[in-house]
Amino acid sequence: MNVLIIGAAGMLGRKLSHQLNAQKMCAGQAIGQLDLVDVVPPQPLDSATSDDATGSDAQARNVVSAIRDPLIITQAADLTAPHVAQQLIAARPDVIYHLAAIVSGEAEQDMDKGYRINLDGTRALLEAIRSEHEKDGYCPTFIFTSSIAVYGSPFPETISDEFHLTPLTSYGTQKAMCELLLADYHRRGILLGVGLRLPTICIRPGKPNAAASSFFSGILREPINGQPAILPVADTVRHWFASPKAAVGFLIHAATLTREQIGPRCNMNLPGLSATVAEQIESLRNVVGSEAVALIRRENDPVVATIVAGWAESFDAQRAMALGFAAESSFDDIIQVYLDDEMA
Amino acid sequence: MNVLIIGAAGMLGRKLSHQLNAQKMCAGQAIGQLDLVDVVPPQPLDSATSDDATGSDAQARNVVSAIRDPLIITQAADLTAPHVAQQLIAARPDVIYHLAAIVSGEAEQDMDKGYRINLDGTRALLEAIRSEHEKDGYCPTFIFTSSIAVYGSPFPETISDEFHLTPLTSYGTQKAMCELLLADYHRRGILLGVGLRLPTICIRPGKPNAAASSFFSGILREPINGQPAILPVADTVRHWFASPKAAVGFLIHAATLTREQIGPRCNMNLPGLSATVAEQIESLRNVVGSEAVALIRRENDPVVATIVAGWAESFDAQRAMALGFAAESSFDDIIQVYLDDEMA
Repeated sequence: MNVLIIGAAGMLGRKLSHQLNAQKMCAGQAIGQLDLVDVVPPQPLDSATSDDATGSDAQARNVVSAIRDPLIITQAADLTAPHVAQQLIAARPDVIYHLAAIVSGEAEQDMDKGYRINLDGTRALLEAIRSEHEKDGYCPTFIFTSSIAVYGSPFPETISDEFHLTPLTSYGTQKAMCELLLADYHRRGILLGVGLRLPTICIRPGKPNAAASSFFSGILREPINGQPAILPVADTVRHWFASPKAAVGFLIHAATLTREQIGPRCNMNLPGLSATVAEQIESLRNVVGSEAVALIRRENDPVVATIVAGWAESFDAQRAMALGFAAESSFDDIIQVYLDDEMA
Repeated sequence: MNVLIIGAAGMLGRKLSHQLNAQKMCAGQAIGQLDLVDVVPPQPLDSATSDDATGSDAQARNVVSAIRDPLIITQAADLTAPHVAQQLIAARPDVIYHLAAIVSGEAEQDMDKGYRINLDGTRALLEAIRSEHEKDGYCPTFIFTSSIAVYGSPFPETISDEFHLTPLTSYGTQKAMCELLLADYHRRGILLGVGLRLPTICIRPGKPNAAASSFFSGILREPINGQPAILPVADTVRHWFASPKAAVGFLIHAATLTREQIGPRCNMNLPGLSATVAEQIESLRNVVGSEAVALIRRENDPVVATIVAGWAESFDAQRAMALGFAAESSFDDIIQVYLDDEMA
């Protein structure tokens, strides 16, 4: 079983890579090779195994475990450059995680780049799979990270699994278009597709990014680290969250699903937690303390506020829950994941 | 006011061209020029005016009317060939009707061709508009014919305006992807977009086409013309219909809508008539007679039956009705439209 992760240098890609490398299994099978690809070189996972094309070190360390360590190959590659998608797929990965994307803020500012990376890049991958499929029936599992940005207001208080997609950003448009493509290739039997509409991931470790949602993590992460943070929207803004740990769990669980379980509708909303900014801040007070809360400064940003006002607040993700996907049920838990994973 | 019709040689394109030429007005303004484009040369509308680049004949016949006849230009062009979209848009049409598409059956059989014409062709047009828009704010009305094939079963008995799009054909996928693109360009102010999810048009004049829905017209049209017809599905199959006359009415009405009326959700279901095959046949008996009904031969086609089983049966098109779109309310009326327009 070989696994390819595209977008492996991103936050979620790194965490997924580490988790798969640690558990050595994917969808119930031992991972032979783990290919980590991104436009920037993905960080080596482990000095003993990364960039180790022979696998000899992995074999040497095999004393402690009955399962051989995956062979890890890291590669810097631009999915939208000629032949890159074909090269990646020619290695015939069994499971493909496609996490690479230009984030919402950047896709809104640079329309060409957003469509090129988020739409054309995904399409190039799907077409490369089709080309191999037509040779001999090759049919990998393709797990695509979509986003709740495929939804646009006005919507009901709680969004059902059958509510229409009316994105209000180019990023959301690109994700929704890729969902449609994925479902068509899935329906044609070219691949087994799973499109996961991730909740906003919170608390993202590291630095703020260009996503309009970046502050949802920043107002917690920066104060936990003793730094000031800016809150650009009102306390009453409600949004839909899951931790990075829950998101990695979604990705790993998705690889276990069969065509019968998925059915024709391969894109789905995932479970998460609906919380207001005020509730986020209260959890910060509970779990970390008032001195952390005092580091949050309110500074309204009408651009961010307008984008966020078009976002979904809550979902009834019945289908995904029935398929075994699970997330946190309190914001205290979400903050605790950050403390355990990043501050330990 | 200049009007461009892409797909002008198709059934709907021809009827729309004739109607616009006859009424000489679009969205309340006199039509100066009517550009008719298709991959095959559109038929001249009228021997006096077609291919008349000088407009002198049109002027000469202006005695009977206060409004000058539109100058009609016909052109054969492939939208997916290099620079064709840019050339069409460089003439700065005020209203663009984009009706050109590979139909469902062909798009299912030839995946490359379907995506190239139905997705890439539309995208090329939208990008050509963006290029002109970025020069000086050019912002045409862009009317796109989508289809109820953007929906896929299972669905409720009656589909609301907020039900999700889960197409079960590549054609439906391509139409749904174009809807998303159109909405993004509309939202960005690059154009004023209207995406019309046409009901199945019945009774289509002329010959059967490669669309899986072709028989819905064939079982009426052929018997009306004294020819045998094959019914490939069960009498109980229910579907959603409008006449060609109603469809032309939708297209002409769409050009009158303002950005305020359309709002951010520029793609919409249209009113139509929900009827079973048995009800179609009963109307044929009522309006034409039992000898026509006797020409229908039942011959089940599992491929067609499977495709049709995934199609929508009925809609509650509240938004479009509130915006002033209207269709037939009985199948007898739909058959009468054919008798009036094609048999007179």
